[in-house]
Amino acid sequence: MADLQKALQTLQSLDFSKMYEGDFFLTWEKTDAEIRATFEVAEALRALRENNVSPKIFDSGLAISMFRDNSTRTRFSFASACNLLGLTVQDFDEGKSQVAHGETVRETANMISFMADVIGIRDDMYIGKGNAYMHEVVNAVAEGHRAGVLAQKPTLVNLQCDIDHPTQAMADTLHLINHFGGVENLKGKKVAMTWAYSPSYGKPLSVPQGVIGLMTRFGMEVVLAHPEGYEVMPEVEAVARANAKGSGGSFTRVHSMDEAFRGADIVYPKSWASFSAMERRTALYGRGDAEGIRALEKELLQQNAQHKDWECTEERMALTKGGKALYLHCLPADISGVSCKEGEVAASVFDRYRDPLYTEASFKPYIIAAMIFLAKVKNPVEVLRSMGDKSRRLYE
Amino acid sequence: MADLQKALQTLQSLDFSKMYEGDFFLTWEKTDAEIRATFEVAEALRALRENNVSPKIFDSGLAISMFRDNSTRTRFSFASACNLLGLTVQDFDEGKSQVAHGETVRETANMISFMADVIGIRDDMYIGKGNAYMHEVVNAVAEGHRAGVLAQKPTLVNLQCDIDHPTQAMADTLHLINHFGGVENLKGKKVAMTWAYSPSYGKPLSVPQGVIGLMTRFGMEVVLAHPEGYEVMPEVEAVARANAKGSGGSFTRVHSMDEAFRGADIVYPKSWASFSAMERRTALYGRGDAEGIRALEKELLQQNAQHKDWECTEERMALTKGGKALYLHCLPADISGVSCKEGEVAASVFDRYRDPLYTEASFKPYIIAAMIFLAKVKNPVEVLRSMGDKSRRLYE
Amino acid sequence: MADLQKALQTLQSLDFSKMYEGDFFLTWEKTDAEIRATFEVAEALRALRENNVSPKIFDSGLAISMFRDNSTRTRFSFASACNLLGLTVQDFDEGKSQVAHGETVRETANMISFMADVIGIRDDMYIGKGNAYMHEVVNAVAEGHRAGVLAQKPTLVNLQCDIDHPTQAMADTLHLINHFGGVENLKGKKVAMTWAYSPSYGKPLSVPQGVIGLMTRFGMEVVLAHPEGYEVMPEVEAVARANAKGSGGSFTRVHSMDEAFRGADIVYPKSWASFSAMERRTALYGRGDAEGIRALEKELLQQNAQHKDWECTEERMALTKGGKALYLHCLPADISGVSCKEGEVAASVFDRYRDPLYTEASFKPYIIAAMIFLAKVKNPVEVLRSMGDKSRRLYE
Repeated sequence: MADLQKALQTLQSLDFSKMYEGDFFLTWEKTDAEIRATFEVAEALRALRENNVSPKIFDSGLAISMFRDNSTRTRFSFASACNLLGLTVQDFDEGKSQVAHGETVRETANMISFMADVIGIRDDMYIGKGNAYMHEVVNAVAEGHRAGVLAQKPTLVNLQCDIDHPTQAMADTLHLINHFGGVENLKGKKVAMTWAYSPSYGKPLSVPQGVIGLMTRFGMEVVLAHPEGYEVMPEVEAVARANAKGSGGSFTRVHSMDEAFRGADIVYPKSWASFSAMERRTALYGRGDAEGIRALEKELLQQNAQHKDWECTEERMALTKGGKALYLHCLPADISGVSCKEGEVAASVFDRYRDPLYTEASFKPYIIAAMIFLAKVKNPVEVLRSMGDKSRRLYE
Repeated sequence: MADLQKALQTLQSLDFSKMYEGDFFLTWEKTDAEIRATFEVAEALRALRENNVSPKIFDSGLAISMFRDNSTRTRFSFASACNLLGLTVQDFDEGKSQVAHGETVRETANMISFMADVIGIRDDMYIGKGNAYMHEVVNAVAEGHRAGVLAQKPTLVNLQCDIDHPTQAMADTLHLINHFGGVENLKGKKVAMTWAYSPSYGKPLSVPQGVIGLMTRFGMEVVLAHPEGYEVMPEVEAVARANAKGSGGSFTRVHSMDEAFRGADIVYPKSWASFSAMERRTALYGRGDAEGIRALEKELLQQNAQHKDWECTEERMALTKGGKALYLHCLPADISGVSCKEGEVAASVFDRYRDPLYTEASFKPYIIAAMIFLAKVKNPVEVLRSMGDKSRRLYE
Repeated sequence: MADLQKALQTLQSLDFSKMYEGDFFLTWEKTDAEIRATFEVAEALRALRENNVSPKIFDSGLAISMFRDNSTRTRFSFASACNLLGLTVQDFDEGKSQVAHGETVRETANMISFMADVIGIRDDMYIGKGNAYMHEVVNAVAEGHRAGVLAQKPTLVNLQCDIDHPTQAMADTLHLINHFGGVENLKGKKVAMTWAYSPSYGKPLSVPQGVIGLMTRFGMEVVLAHPEGYEVMPEVEAVARANAKGSGGSFTRVHSMDEAFRGADIVYPKSWASFSAMERRTALYGRGDAEGIRALEKELLQQNAQHKDWECTEERMALTKGGKALYLHCLPADISGVSCKEGEVAASVFDRYRDPLYTEASFKPYIIAAMIFLAKVKNPVEVLRSMGDKSRRLYE
C-alpha cells in the first residue's frame, strides 16, 4: 500500500513549479526535484485509489492518444490514468506511416485539440523522428493557444519515442523505490541493463536508453551490456555518464552479459536493434524501399542469431548478488520455450519473477497520471490533501 | 414502465449475498434466488432510468471489453450498461484468433486490469474454448489481486461463450416475465426452442443452450426441436432435464418443428450449427487447416439446405396456442425474402412481432448492468432505494 | 472571448421552442430564429468553457457516432461536443458500404439506441442517399420510442450528408459573425463560394451547398462560381435564391473565379465534384461496377485538369475588397506546392490565413454542442444562466 502522508511530506520540500502547464518529453530534461515529484504524486494517487478515493481533477475534458505503433500495455495505462483524473480518451489513428509532417502536423494538432487537455503520443519506430514529431505537435498547439485558436494548451505525455520511454523507465524506477524501501536505498545498487537475444527484430532502443538515462541519477552503478554492433545513441550514453558523475554513481559499458550480471542487484535483460540499424531502417522506410527493408530484416535476424547465448538463464542469475537480483522487464518478454524457442529469458527465471514483473507494470498508470496531474494542477500538495473524502465508489 | 417498489420488495426476500464480488459465467451456476435477484435489479435499474434517475455507482473506473467475434447488439448493450453505472469502456482487440492462451492470457489479463472494475468477454467461436478462456482470465486476475498486483479483482461478465449466452437468455426471459405479467405466470407455458434454416453456417450454439438451460427453471414446458445432426451439447441437455425436474416443468427433444410449435405459448426459431460440426471446426482452426474449413463449410451448407422447410411460417404460427404464440429471436434474424431468399422466418411473421422483438432486445443492457451491480454493490436494496432523487439529466 | 451575457440577452428574444426534442437535418429547414439561437447557444457554451465552467447537462448517457466516410475534424468535433455536455461517444462502424437500408436500418437504429441521447451521422458519399438514410434512422427511433421500445428518442445531428453540411456551414458563419463583429454586419458583404482545382476527385457537394443555403439568409451577396460541368443540386440553388430574396441579399452564379473574387469580402475556394458526376458514381456503386467507377474517376480527373487555373492565387486575392478578403476553407485544403503540386490555393495565401482558418474550425464543436443542447434542454436560457459557478476543473 502506498503512503499518502509520506508522499505529501516529501512533495512539500520539492520545487516542481515549472512542471505546471508543461510537457513531458525526456526524463533528463527534468530536474531531480521534478523527477522526484513525479514519483511522489504517483504514490499519492496510488494511495488514494487503493483507498477508493477519487482523484478526479476534471469534470469533463479530452485526452487525445496517438499511437504510431501497436500497444496494449501503454494504451491501457494511458486510458487508466486519464479515466482516473476524469478525462475521456479519444484515439487518433493515422496509421503507422511517417508521412504526416510539417504543415500537416501543425494543422492536425490544432484540429484535434480544441477541447484537449492532454495529448499522449507513442512514436518510436523511426530514429530521429519520434521525439521531433512530439515537439512539432507541442509547438503547433502552443502556437494555436497563443493565437487564440485553442482555449488551452494541451499537455504532451511522451508515451515512447525514438530516444526515451519516460513512462516505462519511471515506472521501472518507482518499482525499485518500492522494492528497496526508498529512493535513498538505490544508492550503490548495481543495475545491469543488458541486451538479450530475441528471434524478432527491430525492437526500439527507447527502453535501454530510458533506463540508462534515468537510473544513473540515483547514485546507482549502471552497466550497459550488449554485443558489438548493438550500440545505443551516443547522446544518451553521454547523458548517462553525466548523470552518474552528478549522482555519485557510475555508468559503464561492457560486451559481456556475465560481467554485467556479476554482483548485480537488478537485471534488465531485453532485446533491441542497434542504433545504426534503426537509422538504416528509417532511411529505407523514408524511401519506401520494401525490398531494402526485407533485406535489412534478414541481415539483422542473422546478426541476432549469432548472440543466442545472450539469455537470462538460471546460471546467469546465480552470478548476481546472492543469486537474487531483481529481474525487470517492460513486457512482453520473449520467454525461451514459451513464447518462442530461444529468447531473452529462461522460463523458470521469468516464472519466479512473475508477480514483481506485474507489479512493475502496475506503476505505469500512476506515473502517467502524475505527469498529467503536475501539468494541470497548480497546487498539487493542497489538492491531493483535500481529496481524502471523495469516494470513487458512489455507493458501496 | 418498470416498477421500482415491486422489484425492491422482492429483492428483500432473496439471498444473493454470494454474488457480491463474484463473476457471471453460466446461468446454471447461479441459484434460483440469484437469477431472480438479477431480474429484479435489472427491473429496478430500468425503472430508475425511465424516470431519468441516475444509477451511477462509480465516479470513475474502467470496463474492459474483449470481443473475440463480431458484435453490434451485445457491444452496445455492454457500453450502455457500463455508462449507466459510471464506467468507461476500453476495448481490447486481439483479433479473433484463438492463439492467446496459457501464459499470455495470464499476463494480458493483468496488464489490462490495473484499474478495471469489469471485464466483459465474448468468445463463442470455438467449442471447448470460450468458457475455458473466461475462467483463465478470471483466475489470472484473482491471482493478481491476491498477489497485490491489482488493487481490485475485476468482475467477469460472460457476453457469450461456447456453452451459454447468459445475458441473452436472461434478457429473453425478462421479456417473457414482463409479457406474461410475472415470473409466476411462466409456469406451465410451452416454449419451442427450435432450429430453423439459414443460408449461413456456423452460428453459435450458445443461444439454444442458454435458453434450454435457463427457461427450464421456471416450470415451463421446454421443447427443443431440430433435425437430426443438429444436436446441442449433451451436458447442457442434462442441465435442462435436471432443471425441469426441479421446477416442475418439462424438457423434451423432438425432430419436428410442427410438433414443437403445436400449442406453444412461445416460439424461438433460430439457426445453429451442430455440436459435432463445431467440434470439427474448432479442431480445423486449431490446425490452421483452411482447406478443411472450406470443405466443412460446404458440407454444412449442403446439410442445412436439406432442411429449408424448417421455417417459421404463418402456417406454423397457426399451430401455436390460439395462433398467437410470442415469437422470440436474439436478432438479427434471417428473414425470407428480406435479408435472404429463404431463411428462418417468413417476412409477415417477423413484421408482426417487430415491436416485441425490439423490446426483448432492450432488456439486455439492464441485465448486464444488474450483473455488474450485484457484483459491485454490497447492499443493493439499500443503494437502489437511496438513488431516487439524483437525476441523470443535470438540467431539464 | 465569447460574451455570455450578450448571447443570453439575444436568446431571450427568440422563439426556438420547436427545437426541443427535435433533430438537425438541413439549415434551411430551420427558422431564422432557430438558426440564430444555435449561434447564440454556441457562443454561450464557448464563453462558459473559456471560463472553465462546465456546461455538462448529462450525468450519464451515450452519443452514437456513425461515420460512413473518413473523418478527423468532424469526428473530434463531435467527440468534443459530447464530452462537453456529459455524453460518452460510442462509435458504430458498419463500413462505408451503402448496403444497410430498409429493414436493417430500422432494426439497427433501435438496437444501438436503447440508451442513446444523440446520434451523429456522416453519410455524404452517395447523392440521393445520405440525407434519406438519416431520415430512415430518425423515423425508426421515433417509431421505437412511440412503441415503448426506447425510453427516449435520440436526437439526430447531421454531421454531413449529400445535400448539406450544417455543422460546417454554421461554424463558417459563426466565424464570420465573430470576424465582422455581429450578425447584423454580414448584411451586404460579398462572399465568393467558388470551385477550385484539386488533383483528387469526388469531393462532396455538401460544403458549397451548405454555404449557399445558409449564407444567403443574412443579406449577403453570395456568388457561386464554378466551371461549366460542376453544377450543384438545383434544389439547393433554389433554396439560395429564395433565401436571398427573403433576406434582402442576392444569389448569383458565374463561371469565372475572377468575377467572383472581384470586390469580395469573403472567399471560399474549394473543390467539388459535379452533381451529375456524383449521380453517376452513386449508380455505379449501387451496381458494384468497379470498372465503371475507375473509368469515371479517370474522366473526372481529366475534367478537373482542364481547370487548373481555378486556384486561389495572390493575384486573385488582390481582386478582393482592399485585397484583404477573409479566406475560408473547411480544411484540409489542397495547397499548391505543399500538399500537392497544383491545388486549390497558393501556399502564401493559405499561410497568411492559417490562424483565422483554425479559428474557423474551432467553432464546430460548439455548433454541434448547441444543436444537442437545444434539442435536450427545455429552458436553455435559464439553464445557461445557472451554470456559471460549476467549474470544469474540479481542482485548480
